[in-house]
Amino acid sequence: MAVEACCLRLLLVLVVFLCAAESKYIQYNTTSRIVPGKLNVHLVPHTHDDVGWVKTVDQYYTGSNNSLLAAPACVRNVLDSLVPALLADKNRKFIYAEQAFFQLWWREQSEVIQDTVKQLVTSGQLEFINGGMCMHDEAATHYIDMIDQTTLGHRFIKQEFNVTPRVGWQIDTFGHSAVQAYLLGAEVGFDSLFFGRIDYQDRAKRKNEKSLEVVWRGSKSFGSSAQIFAGAFPSLYVPPSDSFYFETDNLSPIVQDDMNLGDYNVPERVNDFVSEAISQANITRTNHIMWTMGNDFTYQYANSWFRQMDKFIHHVNQDGRVNALYSTPSIYTDAKHATNESWPIKSDDFFPYANAVNAYWTGYFTSRPALKRYVRMMSSYYLAARQLEFFKGMSKSGPNTEFLADALAIVQHHDAISGTSRQHVADDYTKRLSKGYKEAEKVVAESLSCLTSSRPNTGCKSVVMKFQQCPLLNISYCPPSEVDLSKRKELVIVVYNPLGWKREDVIKIPVVSENVTVKDFTGKEIESQILPLLNASVGLRNDHVKAYLGISPSVTPRYWLAFSATVPPLGFSTYIVSSATQTANTSERRTVYKTETSQNDTIKVGPGNLKLIYSGHDGKLIQYTNSRSAVKESVKQSFSYYRGDDGSVVDYGEDGNPHFQASGAYIFRPNGTYPIKSEGQVSFTVLRGPLLDEVHQRINSWIYQVTRIYREKEHAEIEFTIGPIPVDDGIGKEIVTKISTSMKTNKQFYTDSNGRDFIQRIRDYRKDWDLEVNQPVAGNYYPINLGIYMKDNNTELSLLVDRSVGGSSIVDGQLELMLHRRLLDDDDKGITEALDEEVCIEDDCKGLTIIGKYHLRIDPLGEGARWRRSFGQEIYSPFLLAFTEQDGDNWTSSHVTTFSGMDPSYVLPDNVAILTLQELEDGKALFRLAHLYQIEEDKDLSVMASVELKKVFAHKKIKQMTEMSLSANQGRLEMERKRLVWNVEGSSEEEEEPKALRGGPVDPTKLVVDLAPMEIRTFTIDF
Amino acid sequence: MAVEACCLRLLLVLVVFLCAAESKYIQYNTTSRIVPGKLNVHLVPHTHDDVGWVKTVDQYYTGSNNSLLAAPACVRNVLDSLVPALLADKNRKFIYAEQAFFQLWWREQSEVIQDTVKQLVTSGQLEFINGGMCMHDEAATHYIDMIDQTTLGHRFIKQEFNVTPRVGWQIDTFGHSAVQAYLLGAEVGFDSLFFGRIDYQDRAKRKNEKSLEVVWRGSKSFGSSAQIFAGAFPSLYVPPSDSFYFETDNLSPIVQDDMNLGDYNVPERVNDFVSEAISQANITRTNHIMWTMGNDFTYQYANSWFRQMDKFIHHVNQDGRVNALYSTPSIYTDAKHATNESWPIKSDDFFPYANAVNAYWTGYFTSRPALKRYVRMMSSYYLAARQLEFFKGMSKSGPNTEFLADALAIVQHHDAISGTSRQHVADDYTKRLSKGYKEAEKVVAESLSCLTSSRPNTGCKSVVMKFQQCPLLNISYCPPSEVDLSKRKELVIVVYNPLGWKREDVIKIPVVSENVTVKDFTGKEIESQILPLLNASVGLRNDHVKAYLGISPSVTPRYWLAFSATVPPLGFSTYIVSSATQTANTSERRTVYKTETSQNDTIKVGPGNLKLIYSGHDGKLIQYTNSRSAVKESVKQSFSYYRGDDGSVVDYGEDGNPHFQASGAYIFRPNGTYPIKSEGQVSFTVLRGPLLDEVHQRINSWIYQVTRIYREKEHAEIEFTIGPIPVDDGIGKEIVTKISTSMKTNKQFYTDSNGRDFIQRIRDYRKDWDLEVNQPVAGNYYPINLGIYMKDNNTELSLLVDRSVGGSSIVDGQLELMLHRRLLDDDDKGITEALDEEVCIEDDCKGLTIIGKYHLRIDPLGEGARWRRSFGQEIYSPFLLAFTEQDGDNWTSSHVTTFSGMDPSYVLPDNVAILTLQELEDGKALFRLAHLYQIEEDKDLSVMASVELKKVFAHKKIKQMTEMSLSANQGRLEMERKRLVWNVEGSSEEEEEPKALRGGPVDPTKLVVDLAPMEIRTFTIDF
Repeated sequence: MAVEACCLRLLLVLVVFLCAAESKYIQYNTTSRIVPGKLNVHLVPHTHDDVGWVKTVDQYYTGSNNSLLAAPACVRNVLDSLVPALLADKNRKFIYAEQAFFQLWWREQSEVIQDTVKQLVTSGQLEFINGGMCMHDEAATHYIDMIDQTTLGHRFIKQEFNVTPRVGWQIDTFGHSAVQAYLLGAEVGFDSLFFGRIDYQDRAKRKNEKSLEVVWRGSKSFGSSAQIFAGAFPSLYVPPSDSFYFETDNLSPIVQDDMNLGDYNVPERVNDFVSEAISQANITRTNHIMWTMGNDFTYQYANSWFRQMDKFIHHVNQDGRVNALYSTPSIYTDAKHATNESWPIKSDDFFPYANAVNAYWTGYFTSRPALKRYVRMMSSYYLAARQLEFFKGMSKSGPNTEFLADALAIVQHHDAISGTSRQHVADDYTKRLSKGYKEAEKVVAESLSCLTSSRPNTGCKSVVMKFQQCPLLNISYCPPSEVDLSKRKELVIVVYNPLGWKREDVIKIPVVSENVTVKDFTGKEIESQILPLLNASVGLRNDHVKAYLGISPSVTPRYWLAFSATVPPLGFSTYIVSSATQTANTSERRTVYKTETSQNDTIKVGPGNLKLIYSGHDGKLIQYTNSRSAVKESVKQSFSYYRGDDGSVVDYGEDGNPHFQASGAYIFRPNGTYPIKSEGQVSFTVLRGPLLDEVHQRINSWIYQVTRIYREKEHAEIEFTIGPIPVDDGIGKEIVTKISTSMKTNKQFYTDSNGRDFIQRIRDYRKDWDLEVNQPVAGNYYPINLGIYMKDNNTELSLLVDRSVGGSSIVDGQLELMLHRRLLDDDDKGITEALDEEVCIEDDCKGLTIIGKYHLRIDPLGEGARWRRSFGQEIYSPFLLAFTEQDGDNWTSSHVTTFSGMDPSYVLPDNVAILTLQELEDGKALFRLAHLYQIEEDKDLSVMASVELKKVFAHKKIKQMTEMSLSANQGRLEMERKRLVWNVEGSSEEEEEPKALRGGPVDPTKLVVDLAPMEIRTFTIDF
Repeated sequence: MAVEACCLRLLLVLVVFLCAAESKYIQYNTTSRIVPGKLNVHLVPHTHDDVGWVKTVDQYYTGSNNSLLAAPACVRNVLDSLVPALLADKNRKFIYAEQAFFQLWWREQSEVIQDTVKQLVTSGQLEFINGGMCMHDEAATHYIDMIDQTTLGHRFIKQEFNVTPRVGWQIDTFGHSAVQAYLLGAEVGFDSLFFGRIDYQDRAKRKNEKSLEVVWRGSKSFGSSAQIFAGAFPSLYVPPSDSFYFETDNLSPIVQDDMNLGDYNVPERVNDFVSEAISQANITRTNHIMWTMGNDFTYQYANSWFRQMDKFIHHVNQDGRVNALYSTPSIYTDAKHATNESWPIKSDDFFPYANAVNAYWTGYFTSRPALKRYVRMMSSYYLAARQLEFFKGMSKSGPNTEFLADALAIVQHHDAISGTSRQHVADDYTKRLSKGYKEAEKVVAESLSCLTSSRPNTGCKSVVMKFQQCPLLNISYCPPSEVDLSKRKELVIVVYNPLGWKREDVIKIPVVSENVTVKDFTGKEIESQILPLLNASVGLRNDHVKAYLGISPSVTPRYWLAFSATVPPLGFSTYIVSSATQTANTSERRTVYKTETSQNDTIKVGPGNLKLIYSGHDGKLIQYTNSRSAVKESVKQSFSYYRGDDGSVVDYGEDGNPHFQASGAYIFRPNGTYPIKSEGQVSFTVLRGPLLDEVHQRINSWIYQVTRIYREKEHAEIEFTIGPIPVDDGIGKEIVTKISTSMKTNKQFYTDSNGRDFIQRIRDYRKDWDLEVNQPVAGNYYPINLGIYMKDNNTELSLLVDRSVGGSSIVDGQLELMLHRRLLDDDDKGITEALDEEVCIEDDCKGLTIIGKYHLRIDPLGEGARWRRSFGQEIYSPFLLAFTEQDGDNWTSSHVTTFSGMDPSYVLPDNVAILTLQELEDGKALFRLAHLYQIEEDKDLSVMASVELKKVFAHKKIKQMTEMSLSANQGRLEMERKRLVWNVEGSSEEEEEPKALRGGPVDPTKLVVDLAPMEIRTFTIDF
């Protein structure tokens, strides 16, 4: 049936139908607005739609696979039924958060429905809240991903509806980060931020002190200039008690106000309402309280809720003791602001989160480490691919980075990257990333084909895509490099550097022959090193290629070829590998077995300034020395596991109810620590060469460790291969590595907030309340995205990670990282599945094996930040390698072999990085620069930095540029103009706060962007 | 917000909204109609909304009290969400059955919505099915109540929508009665009748023989003239498999047809559909099959179902193997009819119903015996009250019988009168009846006040209501008769006879003094008898008055006063009770104790022709003799109990799945029979008097029995008081009384169908299939509303009951009635509550005690029908007693003391009864006459009878009268004209069928109505 026919037919009858909400016998008065002098109960209708959790995103959207769920969900129903429910009464309001779902729905709607919804948005009945594609996690997410996914949602909302979300709405995330508050809050222009989960001890105290609502200053560098009004709900994000749920399958007593029917209950229900309101008012400042009227996937039939809320508003206001109204968090925020109340200040963050004595939500910092790594790789790849897409020019019909953008946005969800979804959902996230990658890979290949073409102007359109890439390089699988070069073929490697700095780094690729030589793009043969590809790696490689690609590799490489590449900023260099008559520099190999005759001497490893010294007796690390910095520190490194509690013993929590708390995807609940000892004969192999030394340690049958020391680097790179974690003893295990020193760290250590700010942590201590320590390990765990460090009076020891992990310092002088987890029990937080990841080849499944890296460096006190920040960027943005073969042709003479997107003479300052360089749909560019240092973090670099845009965009002319809010959905000036000013308690203290440093306006003639410490500036640029 | 404002605002935006069903990316083609030559799958969207079950009617309607339910329900949501779902696509259809809910909803709707719904009904998108207030039970219901409740619904539908339901839809009732098929089916003009529950053995055979669909001839008297096309569903009334449920909380796989989302499954789902269709086609005649797309309380959000059905219709028809269409049972019936197929004939009924080997749904025939009795009392009272309302003239503002009509209609529901609701729901039904009664009691009192007034024309308007009534007479509680008459007061008793015959009957009322005398309205003192009110009765009385009314009676009567009243048809007589100087005829009293010295002589009881002879040894009945008819039969009477199976032992049913089947509200599953022996000393007391003799037997501490033999009656009245059934042994008990004789009954006995036709039953035998006997007791139980009888070559023994009970003849020569049940386990049919009724005084609860009667008579063979039919009417319609006091005045001289609504010289023929005499809203009268005999039932009375309306309505002049269908929603002629003719198998057999006898058209001048055996004729009359 055509839409027109349908519409004509319905014209007469429909107009009136949606007045159905008003029944004949009673007209509900829902017009109430804020009433000064009364207790105002802001009813905020909402649904919390997880972007994947027990079901996949699409399953939640379409309502499929409901058999998995206790509470089946169909987001399409929510949005479908919402619109008529809002139309039926203009006083009704609703907020919607998850743009990933909203966009799915939106693209199905006819224009007329879209227009209707636009009116609902314009009138304020439907308000977009948070506005990102998902409600991102705050622990395991990287700030660049948080910005990207928020931008994606915010720009869609701006384009379709011309509105700007005003409120942060992180209601379900399991702890709350400083970066969320100041960066994804204040810096996107939010007036407030609300959330449901804070530590149960913290909550109890805040209720008591009426300090659930605060002014949160999450940034040390920005202080009040990036503060936000923040509210923790009295209990999650649900109605105030079990008796105010109105889903069609709800169990709450409805308001029965028809005297002609049984069970008339208006007086009781009004009393319930008033009594709940008063009890919330007793823990809340001002005469405004908010009721979050919704829950996970509620409003499947929206009318069911609105009908009851209509009744409550009507009857409660007739009663008159309190004033009930339809509201939104924006209206609530404005009401709070209008009271002129002073609010307590909150600094730092809300980690870790515990909802009960033994329920610390710190396991998820590490859960699904392979997924977490994959997200980080894709995040970095996406950043680079957008740059290359920008250089080439976006193609309307060709491949693009949108699907990867979407997949990355969705996987930031707080049950996605967190590792707290069901397995099949995690698989779906991975599949999305993989699909997105495949598309982006083409963009990259096209762009490089174009940029390497010697006919760049015409070439980009007709260029043949010849580049292959190696996403499985981490498992030694790279078909384009595993070619037989003896047949006069040469391997061309284009090495792209997404950073704004010139950069030198060692590249390692698998090759089939040791007789190879490497030339740079000038034709000069450069130093290279051959390392044997050990049997363990080959097995892992073949198994996982089979598991992931369904094929068995036809070629087995026997060596790693290592060489050092130097690449200009935002640019590439080309290297040529060809067969050589003589063997490349082959690594010296030395193997030590524990059971060999005891050796009292030590083994010193490292071709440069950094030496690691191992015990000849048992192959254990004993010392770290740096001849340049004169650091010398005893260091031990070991593996342990925590036995995951199986939840079989009942706890009686504060509520007096029995809990059976197992360790699981969310919860870390150790039941004992067990050092991992070697099983029998431990191999200890040292490979030495000119570029790097490698120490191979087979700890046991399921832990393998390679430590690399590069000649030109002053840190150790530690690569671990862990898995399958054995569980045949029926015990779930959570694997940690510990780095132990004799440093006097006095309970203190530092972890980053979403890879951005470092925050001081003190063991067994919380700034905001007197911590009752129930979980001495789990309760001291923090999320780590960039790194963790500790210091004493002389030195600082830093570990930088390649993905999100949990970590802590449980003992002075010691840091630990949780690297992998395999658990056999569900932790009762909803997924009803144990975190027991497996990899299957056909039907043969084994526990998941992961490969990962962390990097260890010890610096003299005060000198660690530079490495953490600079090398941190390199970890996030490794070289992007593209391979092609040349067969006869001379690549270097027929192609562009080196390139920089910037002026060849220019590099970014050491304290600045490019976060985004992206062509937008309208042809403009989106450009973000970030200062990498906090105030007082580094004596030289924590200063104002300047970037010369004319040199950054040396090949283009900037016509116009506009500074935007962080999510690029409004002008920065406009955003600042609208910002609400909040009063804080103890204003004298406030006066002491130094004025935060910020870069000034950009002079359009000079086009120099100044950045103060930690500043991120976002621009749209017209060329 | 005013409706107009709302409508204006919505005008532009709304019109288009409901096209939402058609998403942008796919336009569903739902236009398909029947396609000849293809398998047509009729999708019939429906919801089954129990008019009370686990929740009360109002709770189901409003959605309150959901905490009780596994599947919460709100019928308001169903109807609210249905309308826009139908508007969204004119091809969508829906059927709605339960008018009790629909009317609740309807009265809440604005006119514009009402108009919209009217259009949906007119266009056929919304079809009313069944159309009664509820889907009445078919076992425990009386045909008069079935007619009344259907009429109530049908007339509403006719008035509001001008349509006539075409299809019977008894989808959930637990077995199906002959009366349902021919009377509430064919005689209301239905073209077909569908249901979900038939015996599992029967169903298996019918599937095999493609005979689930039949032509059902439920009436022996009418044969094919009252046949109906009837279909049993292949399995209940649900979609064809678990994978086609689409409630928002459903677990079925939705059709995912968006290629852009995950889990695209159109081919699989189309295959599922086609495969289910083909498997149903294999057990169905013709190329039409029906899928009942719904279940209990489904369509809470109707769009959720329609969305999926749209998709199925679209994709299945694109596939093309079968044709799927939106349909209704009417469309399906017409399609079946159009095929010209011949159908098997089905006669009699579908009782008893078993859904599994040990799951005979025959317990509910007796469950909640007090409720069943209360319904019967109210049914009778309603009939009488309507007559009295008619005589007085309906009052617009005053009390009326509508609430009682409504309450009675609702309680006919198949989980109401059946006794299969939860306790609190049963309480709600009772409360509704009680409220309805209170209102009707006023109508009766007003009418009698008016009719007894000597100034009838003016008096009726201003008359003072002085009459009191005694609804608790059964527990000896009657305050107006318990007055002290010694103070010159006199008690006036107006005795109303709702039957069309003159009638004499003994009245018994409690009095405080034995010194009373009774006069008739002529002032003549008449014979009376005083019987002592025994202690047992007084205790029962005081307890239950406290329990039911919350008061303790201030007076305790000590005697029963009995006298014989004679009352004209549809009229009343007045009796005056006053104090007398001498004692009335006091009953002689003789008590026998079992433990007394053994007596070999017998005790003969009975003041008239009938004598019962008891053993002097143990007080047991041994013989029945009637000196007039010369019947003499050895008779024993005893009590037993069946131990209710507790379901603790697993059965493996045909499906191979484990079942734990307890005896419960629905199911009768005996686990052993136990005779109830006397506990110690049994009292046996005989009271003798001129009017009646009473034999009192205290069987044990919880069974008391009084047998009454009236001088003028030739049956024994047996009153049992049973309860509290002891369950402290942890064993549920089902109490039966057995009447044993030496009759050679050859497995045969007869039970009535809804109090109307008698049907032959044969023990361990079914006419339709070879019965596999698994439950030799429960599987032979049948519902009894009027009576049960058995016969041999000489005599017939009949038992008539005062309410619905279950009964059987398990042994030749024996009949049994199940009188009371108290069970401790749930029988797993949904109520999740054991049938363990209690009566509470404040918090002191005891098992329910019931008082009831049955009547026993033995006649020479062929002579029993007359008593069963005539006395059956008297049981149904006892005298209605109204009391007032006269204090000084002379009532008889100042009031009308006798009255008949008919011509004083006229009475109805013995074989005709008035079923309905009621003033309608439009001032017309609704009048129903029923012939009481089946063909060949009585040699004299199974003949055409004539009723002279001029004499029936002697006081009024008939202007016009129209013969109507049974439910009075269409002219009888029109109904007959539209009736579909069906082909049946074996047409030669058919030719043998004698033409059914029917009364001819009524000559408007003579106004004589002829009635053939079993005929019921319905008229609307204009006076």
